[in-house]
Amino acid sequence: MQPNTLYIPELREMLASGDDHGMREFCEALHPAATAEFMSLLNWDEAWRVLEHTDPSNRSQIFSFYEPEQQVEFVEKLAPEAAAALITDLPPDDRVDLLEEVGPDAVANILPLIPDSIRRNIFHLQRYSEDTAGSMMTTDFARLEEQATVSDALSVLATQAADLETIYYMYVVDKQDHLRGVLSARDLVSAIGRPDSMIGDLMDTHVISVDADEEDEEVAEQVAKYDLLAIPVVDKQHRMLGIITHDDVIDFMREQAMEETQRIGGVAPLEESYLRASIPRLAWNRGSWLILLFIGALLTAYALDHYREGPLSSAAWLVLFIPLVISSGGNSGSQSATLIISALSAGQITPNDWIRIISRELLQGFLLGLVLGLIGYLAALWLGESGNPQHYIHALTVPITVLLVVMCGTLMGAMLPLIFERIGWDPALMSTPFIAGIIDVVGIVIYMSVAILLISGVG
Amino acid sequence: MQPNTLYIPELREMLASGDDHGMREFCEALHPAATAEFMSLLNWDEAWRVLEHTDPSNRSQIFSFYEPEQQVEFVEKLAPEAAAALITDLPPDDRVDLLEEVGPDAVANILPLIPDSIRRNIFHLQRYSEDTAGSMMTTDFARLEEQATVSDALSVLATQAADLETIYYMYVVDKQDHLRGVLSARDLVSAIGRPDSMIGDLMDTHVISVDADEEDEEVAEQVAKYDLLAIPVVDKQHRMLGIITHDDVIDFMREQAMEETQRIGGVAPLEESYLRASIPRLAWNRGSWLILLFIGALLTAYALDHYREGPLSSAAWLVLFIPLVISSGGNSGSQSATLIISALSAGQITPNDWIRIISRELLQGFLLGLVLGLIGYLAALWLGESGNPQHYIHALTVPITVLLVVMCGTLMGAMLPLIFERIGWDPALMSTPFIAGIIDVVGIVIYMSVAILLISGVG
Repeated sequence: MQPNTLYIPELREMLASGDDHGMREFCEALHPAATAEFMSLLNWDEAWRVLEHTDPSNRSQIFSFYEPEQQVEFVEKLAPEAAAALITDLPPDDRVDLLEEVGPDAVANILPLIPDSIRRNIFHLQRYSEDTAGSMMTTDFARLEEQATVSDALSVLATQAADLETIYYMYVVDKQDHLRGVLSARDLVSAIGRPDSMIGDLMDTHVISVDADEEDEEVAEQVAKYDLLAIPVVDKQHRMLGIITHDDVIDFMREQAMEETQRIGGVAPLEESYLRASIPRLAWNRGSWLILLFIGALLTAYALDHYREGPLSSAAWLVLFIPLVISSGGNSGSQSATLIISALSAGQITPNDWIRIISRELLQGFLLGLVLGLIGYLAALWLGESGNPQHYIHALTVPITVLLVVMCGTLMGAMLPLIFERIGWDPALMSTPFIAGIIDVVGIVIYMSVAILLISGVG
Repeated sequence: MQPNTLYIPELREMLASGDDHGMREFCEALHPAATAEFMSLLNWDEAWRVLEHTDPSNRSQIFSFYEPEQQVEFVEKLAPEAAAALITDLPPDDRVDLLEEVGPDAVANILPLIPDSIRRNIFHLQRYSEDTAGSMMTTDFARLEEQATVSDALSVLATQAADLETIYYMYVVDKQDHLRGVLSARDLVSAIGRPDSMIGDLMDTHVISVDADEEDEEVAEQVAKYDLLAIPVVDKQHRMLGIITHDDVIDFMREQAMEETQRIGGVAPLEESYLRASIPRLAWNRGSWLILLFIGALLTAYALDHYREGPLSSAAWLVLFIPLVISSGGNSGSQSATLIISALSAGQITPNDWIRIISRELLQGFLLGLVLGLIGYLAALWLGESGNPQHYIHALTVPITVLLVVMCGTLMGAMLPLIFERIGWDPALMSTPFIAGIIDVVGIVIYMSVAILLISGVG
């Protein structure tokens, strides 16, 4: 969310002059997301004084659209009674997410002030580990029995509509809470002319559901595949535990896309937005990778040292093409890694396709290496040792190396993410700078080995 | 969608034995997305023979979950009558998307067989340019007048529910189709006990809408920000044109995340999934970038050639650290570019924040450069010219260069995407290999300049 300064002077003016009517109108006229956006640059206590002018339910609504870090600041600085009231009014999943970020002292003060049933619900949801369906779900959903009629269902909805996170699906369960079917609001509305029809006859029994310990990525996958507005979460006995709604899935997907981009780019994902992240935090999230890559790159110096008395002394022009040779491997490797990681995360390929993937990448590497090698050969002829009659052979070192290095790049750029995926690690950890770093070292060894063969051998 | 081979032998068996009942049951028992998945490895004519066993509406449903390339194959190979029937039953936005991919001959055969009103609708939607709200919208939505009552609204829904893409919002318009308000199914159901209430009194008049020529990214932004299930599309006079539903937004976001990842990684985005893309297409989408980068990298050879008789002849050990020095700049630049591009696309920053961004990046570059420089200095002392008493000074070339190159990397990695965003180009075009390539050349010039100052100056 971009902070918006449009209303800030007006709000401060209202606060200064005690314009209660103006503040109430501001809180209630707009969509709560817009209200939160316009208020996000107020201090927490200014914001709270504005929010006090609206009813608790709308206040919680607006609060729920604040950035997570700002929500935490509110909850930690408010009086515990006010914080407890805010938290009580949040949807069950959002309550748990928020309390996880709040400091333990504040939590200890607030929890006793939250109603019993809601506190139990919080403890219940906290049991699910992060990144699982259980941790994304809310326990507010519409529940029906098979014996209910269309008019029963309509009156359930009419009385509960305001409290439910979604009314678009009603879940049909038996006495033991086993999930038996689902009735969409669409099906219910279509049956409005037959108020005595039984839900059991109308419901869809092929319910797409997820297990509570399923990974969050799989949840997003299912919701996207079946175009769902919400997906039910069940336990091993197929008992209904809660639902995950489409807006949480959209938020998850946005976050995940960003984290993946950051990982591929060799930055540990940030918890906060870029401008809010502290400099030490940013420096650490990239520094840890950068130092690792730097130490890896020291190997290139070590490798070059090894060839110092050999090819590098007998054909000094080889030095000129060191950056070119290693960057062509790094670039083609980064490209392959990018293609493979993004195809893996879109579910287009699995590690089982490795034979097809590797052969496709090697073929591409061969084609690309030929073209780049040709350009490299011309450059080597031009910049190399012009006096030497053997030079047209010596200069072949560059195209041969480029071909091998590019093929090596595409091979490793494809293999390493596949291996990570296979052993259950995030393939995006095989970041493109990491792959480029490995290929730098390999590239130098290939370059010098080809040089020894061609120059020492022929010359 | 991963093809699933589970049912393929059984389906082929049913086809061979003419098991009509089995095929009908297969088409109707599962969610249409699952049916499409299980059939996706059948040839188009086998698939069609299976699909003929279900009614046209379910057939179109299943068909709509096929991959776009497979849909095109179907439409081009089927008899024009059958293709026209399939297309007629699709949602309006999907019809247009599909017809854009189908060859002109097939389109010419099919279009005359589509009912007049639907053909007009197709022509109407085709007017909107790609990547706009207009091109994403569907024209099927529930429309009400302010004077209607709750019971009118319920009966509109009851009769139209099956044909509408969403029933979750009903849009309230005046006689000239100006958008006046929105009524959610939730609000409607809550008012079910007051059947004579007027819609004009119940509706929400603060409707979040988008202009037809708004960019698709902005649409996704709005839907995510306001947790919407659908967003109305209006013209400049605020007349209602159509709606965009959440499932199309989710599909768009998935596609966009993948394209952005590919662009940042220096690959022109693929139209098809990885394994379906032809090798020449893949080689071209990356080759064009790779050749550009390679030609850029030739500049490194040219730059090194320039210093051949200078620092490189007087201090041969400098060669050892060429890859290290340039990769530290490339890596820190890629990281900055990744952070900035992902923060831009998440809406966390805008080019107006450039002063804060640049100062943050330079500060990080300074901190990271100091740490890496220290490690580099130790390595230079160890691998450098051990006999020379001046070496502890000469070796300073490495840390000073690393510090400057890393700061230069963070500066350019942040600036270039911001500049692209400012001039209206996609910042992800400033791919990380591209930034690394620029910094390679700059890095060599810095390295050699520092070496001349320290070694020629002191020595």
